[in-house]
Amino acid sequence: MTQSEQAAQAKTESDALDEESIGNEDTSGLQPEATRLVADLERLGAIGADPNGTGVSRLPFSREEREAHRVIREWMGDVDLEVRTDSFGNTIGVRAGKNNDLPAIGIGSHLDSVPHGGRFDGAVGVVGAMEVIRMLNESDIKTERPIWVVAFASEEGARFGEPCLGSRAVSGVLEPGDLDRLHDAGGTTLADAMRDLGMDPNALASCRWRREEIDVFLELHIEQSVVLEAQGMPVGLVDAIAGNTRIRLTMRGRADHSGGTPMDYRKDALAAAAEVVIAAESIANEKRRRATVATVGRIDNYPNSITTIPGQVEFFLDVRDVDSDRQRLTTEDIVDAATQIAARRGVEFEAELVSDTSPTVLPMWLRDLTIGVCDRLEIPHRIMPSGAGHDAGILSRFIPSGMVFVPSRDGFSHSPEEWTSVEDIAIGVRVLGESVLRVDGFLTELASS
Amino acid sequence: MTQSEQAAQAKTESDALDEESIGNEDTSGLQPEATRLVADLERLGAIGADPNGTGVSRLPFSREEREAHRVIREWMGDVDLEVRTDSFGNTIGVRAGKNNDLPAIGIGSHLDSVPHGGRFDGAVGVVGAMEVIRMLNESDIKTERPIWVVAFASEEGARFGEPCLGSRAVSGVLEPGDLDRLHDAGGTTLADAMRDLGMDPNALASCRWRREEIDVFLELHIEQSVVLEAQGMPVGLVDAIAGNTRIRLTMRGRADHSGGTPMDYRKDALAAAAEVVIAAESIANEKRRRATVATVGRIDNYPNSITTIPGQVEFFLDVRDVDSDRQRLTTEDIVDAATQIAARRGVEFEAELVSDTSPTVLPMWLRDLTIGVCDRLEIPHRIMPSGAGHDAGILSRFIPSGMVFVPSRDGFSHSPEEWTSVEDIAIGVRVLGESVLRVDGFLTELASS
Repeated sequence: MTQSEQAAQAKTESDALDEESIGNEDTSGLQPEATRLVADLERLGAIGADPNGTGVSRLPFSREEREAHRVIREWMGDVDLEVRTDSFGNTIGVRAGKNNDLPAIGIGSHLDSVPHGGRFDGAVGVVGAMEVIRMLNESDIKTERPIWVVAFASEEGARFGEPCLGSRAVSGVLEPGDLDRLHDAGGTTLADAMRDLGMDPNALASCRWRREEIDVFLELHIEQSVVLEAQGMPVGLVDAIAGNTRIRLTMRGRADHSGGTPMDYRKDALAAAAEVVIAAESIANEKRRRATVATVGRIDNYPNSITTIPGQVEFFLDVRDVDSDRQRLTTEDIVDAATQIAARRGVEFEAELVSDTSPTVLPMWLRDLTIGVCDRLEIPHRIMPSGAGHDAGILSRFIPSGMVFVPSRDGFSHSPEEWTSVEDIAIGVRVLGESVLRVDGFLTELASS
Repeated sequence: MTQSEQAAQAKTESDALDEESIGNEDTSGLQPEATRLVADLERLGAIGADPNGTGVSRLPFSREEREAHRVIREWMGDVDLEVRTDSFGNTIGVRAGKNNDLPAIGIGSHLDSVPHGGRFDGAVGVVGAMEVIRMLNESDIKTERPIWVVAFASEEGARFGEPCLGSRAVSGVLEPGDLDRLHDAGGTTLADAMRDLGMDPNALASCRWRREEIDVFLELHIEQSVVLEAQGMPVGLVDAIAGNTRIRLTMRGRADHSGGTPMDYRKDALAAAAEVVIAAESIANEKRRRATVATVGRIDNYPNSITTIPGQVEFFLDVRDVDSDRQRLTTEDIVDAATQIAARRGVEFEAELVSDTSPTVLPMWLRDLTIGVCDRLEIPHRIMPSGAGHDAGILSRFIPSGMVFVPSRDGFSHSPEEWTSVEDIAIGVRVLGESVLRVDGFLTELASS
């Protein structure tokens, strides 16, 4: 904790006591407009919409993602933000404060999606941030410091294997070499994907944020799990974001005729991979790793013909935990199991680290402020970790960041079934808007105290 | 066995005794030309060749398959065969006999391949049949009955799920309704695939062979397994062709976020499918099913994203055995296991029969004739079953059919590593050519006896 963060923490603790003694305050405050939220989400949901159903496919660095950013720029222009899209494709709209020399408060999320994902993941945070600006405009509220509405590019790791590329770029932790190293399943590098969209991969450094420009970031996001719904809580305030290790595993056996080849003569790459899928599940399920999750979400089988014993299988392991030791140890245990499975079957095995992100503990003073907001608005809430990674997690290594979760119906996410009611979204937007004001006031008091 | 087949069998048995008493005959006979075999296989191997390496992709009812048929028609024309391609795309070249009212002797195989398959599967039998015609021409031999060189369409089940469609069509066991029912992974029906190539699916009935047109079929083919090579045998004579049951299995779980969803809340369709892959392997490996093989060669995972728990997996089970009871029972046992796995995991499960072909025992009298040929040419050979299905197996329900196998190096098949030496192919072609003459003579004797 830096000195200013320690000061911030000490202040929120004493403020909490003050508020208790002050008693009831005005709980009306900023009021989001449900019809606008619905209209905005529908507009974004139409970009990259799956032909049959409610899913969307707006992959990182796709034309669909760019189209969503074009729409957001339009909306930002409509409410007189000063808009820019940086060299990496992140869109930032600035609402002026009373003192524009002060570092800004950032709010927002991302606009890309997984293939056949949902309409709420990311979009809720961007639409919510836009709604905060509209509410402030309607209430004629001017904050001390500027507000940045941020739509990050390429948060999902689904295409290039690594997540949160937009927030990594502004944090300065994405290296120019990464743009040539990362590639999608079709072999297109991130740099080439950028060039295809008329973007300049050599300008990466120019999108980096400076610490004197921005002080705090708040992200509204859907929970993507079942906890809030199960407990009837409309809001979750995130204390920690799970770390995430991703490994590309390859089994190389022998592509043989499925009829001509006796069972004991086979080197079936799919059977080997299948054993690893089961092993990953069992290992993650061991009691001593209670909060660990391990997933094989993608598997590509070659030549993938009914009458050919699979010769090669490439598959991806995704391990997450809020405990970094457990996260790495579980990954190692699964890779060890795969090595043994391959050796026993006489199949070649290779494991390659795709990405590794440590868990992040979000700053307590910022969370305490959002708790204070929920308390004042009388909104039930709980403190919870996030199993999913988020841009706010990346940014928190650079600037204090906080997250507000709203419930996901039946826990669905990364699927067309993803859904959050507009009522729940509106509650989240209220908390976000009031938190911006609370942080603005708090930082001003902190500076003058 | 029909009466004429019984007569044929009785006659081969008495002939075998005669030959032993006659002693040495001329073992020079027809001599294939290696350079022609190599050139022809290279020419066919260039059609649908994979850009990197030696594999070929000439899928059923693709432009590549049609191009191969165009080339064969050219070759047939070069040696003055009367050429036709029937309404289903089978190409037939007729070499006139002394008496063209007699039913023909058919020789040949198929020209399609699995995706990224080898250059020998099917092609060897067609090239070998063409070489038989050239040898007969060069030796000025005219057979009593006509010879048909046949290049079947769509032998591989890789695209439409069902194998041997061309031979089924000429045998009259492919129904017009099948053309609309069968479809590939992209949803294109067989009928539409035909129309795309300018073919008429409504003319299916016209390609059916009549029993008075053709009497016998002989197919030269690569073994696609390791037995001949392991035993140092250049030739295998097939006594039975394994039956083949194919099932489409679907697991429907829940596509959820890989980070947000605790392990015990998942319905992972891939984990369920992986258990079935392992179960299929274990069940086929049980001692009591010694000759059974079970394969999951194709698996399609949705949405196949690193960060999404698989929501749906479709995969195909291929079970083969020369014992039809064991073939069906093994399939049932695996489907039962899958049902239990799905139930335990709370995942929806569906199994759909794609195709089911019974094992075929090839007629003994025809095999005995080819044994006699090998004995006379002093070519080491063994009697063996075929794990793979073949057009000759389909035809054998309609006309007596026989098969000659040549070794597959290291047992590779349905892969770019597929390889048979030209020396081994030439031996197979000699056996094929001499067998045609032997059958021609034998049928003539039988008719006059």
